[in-house]
Amino acid sequence: MSKSDTRRGAWDELEQPWTTLTSEQPYVTPWLAIHRDTVRTHTGDEITYSYMERPDCVAIVPVTTTGEMLLLRQYRYPIRAWCWEIPMGGIEEGEDPEATVRRELLEEAGGRAGSVRYITTFYTANGAVRQQYMVYLAEGVERSQTDHEPTELIHVTSVPVAEALRMAHAGEITDSLSALSILLCEPNLGIG
Amino acid sequence: MSKSDTRRGAWDELEQPWTTLTSEQPYVTPWLAIHRDTVRTHTGDEITYSYMERPDCVAIVPVTTTGEMLLLRQYRYPIRAWCWEIPMGGIEEGEDPEATVRRELLEEAGGRAGSVRYITTFYTANGAVRQQYMVYLAEGVERSQTDHEPTELIHVTSVPVAEALRMAHAGEITDSLSALSILLCEPNLGIG
Repeated sequence: MSKSDTRRGAWDELEQPWTTLTSEQPYVTPWLAIHRDTVRTHTGDEITYSYMERPDCVAIVPVTTTGEMLLLRQYRYPIRAWCWEIPMGGIEEGEDPEATVRRELLEEAGGRAGSVRYITTFYTANGAVRQQYMVYLAEGVERSQTDHEPTELIHVTSVPVAEALRMAHAGEITDSLSALSILLCEPNLGIG
Repeated sequence: MSKSDTRRGAWDELEQPWTTLTSEQPYVTPWLAIHRDTVRTHTGDEITYSYMERPDCVAIVPVTTTGEMLLLRQYRYPIRAWCWEIPMGGIEEGEDPEATVRRELLEEAGGRAGSVRYITTFYTANGAVRQQYMVYLAEGVERSQTDHEPTELIHVTSVPVAEALRMAHAGEITDSLSALSILLCEPNLGIG
């Protein structure tokens, strides 16, 4: 980053302004780890900071050969609600993210992609979760059989791409990870 | 929801398809609670499901009297990175969300809003986090003093609204909650 980029400014030069003093993991499952660190902050204060680490994931915006977007109607236990989502899933150890895209697209949505294109990467929730989402646009998708786990209650449907964009813009897709992924693909969807 | 809405379909009629058998909280801080539930799923399987609960929050898209958006350049310990964000914060017990908007806008960004408008609500990450974000557009914002806590390392800056939208669309605002909030306000920003 150039020092002439005044929008960012001199504060960025101190890239790691906090120091980790101790670190433990008071709760761990195969899908998440809670970190509890004691940290010296930029003010000199010693604080305890807890956050959740989750596996890095891919988020897949799947567009079919007939110009529709595959959407999942999925039951989500943490919020006890049915939600509109796109296929997403964790990148396994050593797995190429494009392979994760093809695997999750098939398992969750029963889709086989003609082509897969990387769009961008974002974080789930910087202040409380350590997790990245890599967004991929899958095009030329053809539908085949799904392969859901007992923890996945998912119905696959499809809507015209323009309708999926309308739903995302209107706040009808209330899962932030799905809505943002769709909106970030908008310039690549050939509409608008 | 009407039964003739075939896009949603009959599966929604069974609104709570999973049954909670046991529920505990193995890790709790003032800012988060980890839930570990045993659950009977729609397949009849008994599984353990862990997720994080966090306070419901407001996300504030602040536009100044001179047509700029206030952005925060904030250090986020969980990902050890500096990020572009908007002001956000937890709704306190019994607090009116509009009061939270005005309080957090002042504390985090030193902004006083002329008017505050509710836009929409989304969830952080349906599969792992129980938390809602209510998005508000704050207009006619004037800048005053911030009031940061020792756990907040934040520099307030402002960019033209069109530039903030460009940054969000381009994936430069990598915090999903901030980027999505800005994009959901786009139709109300008088640009495009």
